[in-house]
Amino acid sequence: MKPVDYRSSGVDIQEGDKAIALMKAKVRKTFTKDVLSDLGHFGGLFRADFGHIPEPVLVASTDGVGTKLKIASMTGNYGTVGSDLVNHCVNDILVQGASPLFFMDYIACGRLDARIAADIVSGLAAACSENDCVLLGGETAEMPGFYGDGDYDVAGTIVGLVGKDMIIDGSGIRPGMIVLGLPSNGLHTNGYSLARKAIFENAGLSQSDSHPLLGDRTVGEALLAVHRSYLKALQPLLVEKLVQGMAHITGGGIPGNLPRILPSGCGALIRPLWEVPAIFELIRESGQVDISEMRRAFNMGAGMLLIVDESDSDIAMELLRAKGEEPFIAGEILSGDGITFED
Amino acid sequence: MKPVDYRSSGVDIQEGDKAIALMKAKVRKTFTKDVLSDLGHFGGLFRADFGHIPEPVLVASTDGVGTKLKIASMTGNYGTVGSDLVNHCVNDILVQGASPLFFMDYIACGRLDARIAADIVSGLAAACSENDCVLLGGETAEMPGFYGDGDYDVAGTIVGLVGKDMIIDGSGIRPGMIVLGLPSNGLHTNGYSLARKAIFENAGLSQSDSHPLLGDRTVGEALLAVHRSYLKALQPLLVEKLVQGMAHITGGGIPGNLPRILPSGCGALIRPLWEVPAIFELIRESGQVDISEMRRAFNMGAGMLLIVDESDSDIAMELLRAKGEEPFIAGEILSGDGITFED
Repeated sequence: MKPVDYRSSGVDIQEGDKAIALMKAKVRKTFTKDVLSDLGHFGGLFRADFGHIPEPVLVASTDGVGTKLKIASMTGNYGTVGSDLVNHCVNDILVQGASPLFFMDYIACGRLDARIAADIVSGLAAACSENDCVLLGGETAEMPGFYGDGDYDVAGTIVGLVGKDMIIDGSGIRPGMIVLGLPSNGLHTNGYSLARKAIFENAGLSQSDSHPLLGDRTVGEALLAVHRSYLKALQPLLVEKLVQGMAHITGGGIPGNLPRILPSGCGALIRPLWEVPAIFELIRESGQVDISEMRRAFNMGAGMLLIVDESDSDIAMELLRAKGEEPFIAGEILSGDGITFED
Repeated sequence: MKPVDYRSSGVDIQEGDKAIALMKAKVRKTFTKDVLSDLGHFGGLFRADFGHIPEPVLVASTDGVGTKLKIASMTGNYGTVGSDLVNHCVNDILVQGASPLFFMDYIACGRLDARIAADIVSGLAAACSENDCVLLGGETAEMPGFYGDGDYDVAGTIVGLVGKDMIIDGSGIRPGMIVLGLPSNGLHTNGYSLARKAIFENAGLSQSDSHPLLGDRTVGEALLAVHRSYLKALQPLLVEKLVQGMAHITGGGIPGNLPRILPSGCGALIRPLWEVPAIFELIRESGQVDISEMRRAFNMGAGMLLIVDESDSDIAMELLRAKGEEPFIAGEILSGDGITFED
């Protein structure tokens, strides 16, 4: 009987050390003077110096990339899923008025390839830097027999900060207010199981195929378009207290996310007249997916909705355009409840 | 062609809603007056009211349960892996002197069973309550084609707090100091790939088998023994500033973890005379695993090591015994570097 050792059981400690060596410089580039630890400690240390904010509140959110990771695996491009995850989490705390402090990542796979893990961390670190967020620590786990060879799961937790009087919770939303939308550039991080079934199974396309709807991008490229962060575009509106509520349009689409911030007695009428990215038309056509199912699974081109008073609508649009955004009027708040689409 | 919908693509939104309904009461029981949000918001809100601590520092750590989850899957018992994860993370920030504030979980699976997800959250919530930690939020992701049916991955992030002058980083460790150990009750959360290969493949045992080494526990029960939290036992020593350094013995064993806190010029001599839980003897025997490989993969019965000045050793042992612990002298700090085992 051959003696068992850790490597023969599928866990390669040396490859893990190599991955850490490749990640270190990228992670350290996100560090600020508030980081009191180096990598390799049991935990990451972050100075809780919030004296400039009256009644500081931490806002935390955890999320994963979902089966968008299958597209990364298909295409061999793991360089952007980290950015997808960070931007997703940034938006999730932004809707409550918070700005990022730090991010913690979790990467799990069946057999660790140090280069792929380092690619994932590159994306995490790049998006952290763009969002003024420290990549404070993380865990890379090799779990033989748990993940297919070449499959990686990537999840993470963001912790941000907001003053108690700046928390946005939708409680000020009233009938007559305007629903503004900010464009997504594709699926962001939601609906990939449905999209893969429609495009790859039903339509029989492959990731490297082109398609008239997609112009010069391949199917894989269109599906990997990076989840947008709305932080920099929305910060000026938060400072001016122009926003009554925000909904990050993720899994569940507008019907699943907008009601999360509407106070009792308020519903919304959505007029879907904005431009829908071509990838959604490809999915709908490939899978003969019903439009109401599309709207429950995807953002359909509206990555973020914000509710503003009618009298603030013009200045809000102007501030957004000054940041390079192309905001659109997505609908209005009505008395009642539920979300209605005006077709 | 049959139209594609979200459910046929493998994502069941109703089962997700059912899981959330089952989790809610358990999660809410961990809430304190510092929690400013309810479940279902985009992020969890936690009051950052640290005025009682001079120079407060946040300490964050992310980890997973690793392939201990395969044992949960084999036995159908998902009730304790959540506690494994929380206790692991509590220990990881404890070694820097921090106490828990809140925990965020990530649960991913191929096909969501609301009852299993609720079982996992039960374990998370129970351990959070025991460690005075809020279960502030989390994400449950259904990722068809990513995980085997019945397989769940569970990871999480803990955020804790320590005053800057109470941070323990090992910098005060000097030759001649004593290494104390606290007992583990089994593998805790590390080395399961090696253990499974040895026990299930080499020895051909099944999880429901008994074995003379294990007394009245089955193999599955011995492997599922819950990762211990050392928080309550160690808090009195931290208050009295008796501890110069702590190492949570996880993946890599003593040789992989103790050096993480030793200052340059310090090594350690370990005298492995403490009681080793029977499960390790079963693994060694089943896989003919070399003793040095065992020590690199497992805690071997020492779940936590702490370094104390020789003159503080007796009072430290006494304080630990007063908390019901059975501390042992594991070795001593020597000048030099590296870890040597005295056999």
